[in-house]
Amino acid sequence: MANMISDDLRGLLSERHVDSPVARVVRALSGHGAVSAAQIARTTGLARSTVSTILSDLKRSSLVVEVETRSPGVGRPAIAHSLNPEAGTCLGVLLGRNEARVVLADVAHNVIADVAIPLERDYRPEKATRVIKQTIDNIYKEHSLPFSGLLGVGFAVSGAIAANGRILRGASIPGWSGVDLRATFEPALQKPIFADKESNCAALAEMMWGAAVGVEDFVLFKHDVTIGGAIVANGRVLSGYAGTAGEVGHIMLNPHGDLCSCGNRGCLELECGGSQMISVAERRGGRSLTLPILVQEALAGDIGLRRLIEDAGDVAGRGLATVGTLFNPRMIVISGALAAADDILLAPMRASYGKYTLVKSGDVDGDLPTFVVGKFLDNDNCLGAVGLVLRHHGRLI
Amino acid sequence: MANMISDDLRGLLSERHVDSPVARVVRALSGHGAVSAAQIARTTGLARSTVSTILSDLKRSSLVVEVETRSPGVGRPAIAHSLNPEAGTCLGVLLGRNEARVVLADVAHNVIADVAIPLERDYRPEKATRVIKQTIDNIYKEHSLPFSGLLGVGFAVSGAIAANGRILRGASIPGWSGVDLRATFEPALQKPIFADKESNCAALAEMMWGAAVGVEDFVLFKHDVTIGGAIVANGRVLSGYAGTAGEVGHIMLNPHGDLCSCGNRGCLELECGGSQMISVAERRGGRSLTLPILVQEALAGDIGLRRLIEDAGDVAGRGLATVGTLFNPRMIVISGALAAADDILLAPMRASYGKYTLVKSGDVDGDLPTFVVGKFLDNDNCLGAVGLVLRHHGRLI
Repeated sequence: MANMISDDLRGLLSERHVDSPVARVVRALSGHGAVSAAQIARTTGLARSTVSTILSDLKRSSLVVEVETRSPGVGRPAIAHSLNPEAGTCLGVLLGRNEARVVLADVAHNVIADVAIPLERDYRPEKATRVIKQTIDNIYKEHSLPFSGLLGVGFAVSGAIAANGRILRGASIPGWSGVDLRATFEPALQKPIFADKESNCAALAEMMWGAAVGVEDFVLFKHDVTIGGAIVANGRVLSGYAGTAGEVGHIMLNPHGDLCSCGNRGCLELECGGSQMISVAERRGGRSLTLPILVQEALAGDIGLRRLIEDAGDVAGRGLATVGTLFNPRMIVISGALAAADDILLAPMRASYGKYTLVKSGDVDGDLPTFVVGKFLDNDNCLGAVGLVLRHHGRLI
Repeated sequence: MANMISDDLRGLLSERHVDSPVARVVRALSGHGAVSAAQIARTTGLARSTVSTILSDLKRSSLVVEVETRSPGVGRPAIAHSLNPEAGTCLGVLLGRNEARVVLADVAHNVIADVAIPLERDYRPEKATRVIKQTIDNIYKEHSLPFSGLLGVGFAVSGAIAANGRILRGASIPGWSGVDLRATFEPALQKPIFADKESNCAALAEMMWGAAVGVEDFVLFKHDVTIGGAIVANGRVLSGYAGTAGEVGHIMLNPHGDLCSCGNRGCLELECGGSQMISVAERRGGRSLTLPILVQEALAGDIGLRRLIEDAGDVAGRGLATVGTLFNPRMIVISGALAAADDILLAPMRASYGKYTLVKSGDVDGDLPTFVVGKFLDNDNCLGAVGLVLRHHGRLI
């Protein structure tokens, strides 16, 4: 039974060129999770009556189920619709700097498993394929789920993916530049492969489940050891022809600045990235540190580390001001290890953004853009990789 | 007869929330001009057979006509479909620094009239409404066209339009900041009003008829007395919440630079804008100059003016490099008076772009992005204002 409905679902999701009303409703459910009929009508542009008829048919064939959602406060619980959790599963895989991570979710957006795999710093594609396949097999066995129900595997990569599916020069996993992701993983997994750089996946996670639900235009700023970013316009994560759109860390602040790993000089990342901050803090303290510890000690009151984070926020705000001048987003979501510093980082960032960007406070109604901390600081990349499959974004073919 | 079909067309174009297949086909024709059935199927996502049936019906009701298009070379002329030119008209109006301009086109994308109206530098909304209405009346009378067939009026404005329809602080027409465009023009015109900043209109013109036809992701760089810009992502011109998206001229190159009219320091416009170039050239030559004359004399061999343009191209390329790092576009279209300098401007621009942007030559196949001169240096703003109506972009309500 479960297998039959996953076949139906696979057909509807992959029906890429025939834009039937049924396929549009199924894609809206896949992309948004539990939603009301009214929301589906808005998302798809279909008439409310058409949506109702389609939902009834889909419920009869067990592809869709009704769920109750209750808003805070009194009142009747609202009826929402979701894909049947038994209709299929999706995997999100993070290819990180020294770990892989696998998240399994069902098509109703429930996370079923989340497994981290530590790896040596220079792990190779062959090794990654082997351990990831083994981990996936174990997860499906442990949860007694049919592998046939797997709709696709999304990869969040520490590097940009060009339109031809290859990882671009400059990826932060050594030895992976130029690797063809589909050719690497499809033979072992035998499922559709989706991929995007990790900040784009993080933006997808925040848009689908996190701080940016319902926001069609926002920027994600990933402030960690390195600096990543993503730009979402009209509800879509921008990729660019080389897959590098949103790379806020590599806008140039100083043409005569230090040489960056990307081949340019004076990049934003060199002026306020976590790696530089750790160097300064280690020199000052005479001991080795990690970024989470640095943030924790600043929050506990270390005045020097506070200042280090404040100054980084000030410089980052200057870089984001340029992004603001070009994009004029409604929201800026801060993620990465430094986001845990909250207002120590965000207050100076907001102030310098306001000073250096084109649209000033008072030019428009309201205090825009809003700066918020992301909801999934721990696993946004991997959760977003699941989102790639649910939204059919970044399919490699 | 013509009136009846414009009523039908108005209904289909304004059917904004009911996304019927017929309305989608009509919108594709309105947005793209003469296109084949296969192109319509691709654009709308509808099945080819559905498109054929709908086109037959639309032809029977005279809303659509067949036109022959002939590609260069031998071969049979191809059959394309277009909205019936008699089905309706659109107006594009430029509100410029010291002129207004009115372009009349039919829904088959033919330009019928193009009238410039010189105005004093500080013309006011009341005056503009009066002379523009008078000009429109004259045009419709002269061409014996029914005013009832007018579907809407698009405005290209030398300033950003916020989401509430008001012109933002910083518009380059004095006294127009805060003006509500719809409230100003709708009572006199009694038609739907559309508006966007002039560089966004220019991008729309290049995308619909010019250098960027078929390119879904590009940047327009308007290099003139001031510097404007527009960003097109996934086939849509980005606006941003204050209407300022794409303002490349106001990204900050130097935090301690000169004060800019926008309220920031060291903006790109101050370092390579036409106004600054004219000042330098006038000081050097001891006579007054305009930007077109400056370009003309550089093309004729004036080595000093050549260098002035080359240096401006070099700085502009550095600013565009940042846009490239963030957007990774396939094409950069150069418009404005300086675009006429062609490779004197474009060669150093391309070189410095390549030096300062993230994606280097060799990172991806092909020499991307391509730098091209726009097709409508003379009237892209006003033509794009017609495009606002045809694409239902920037409707003020």
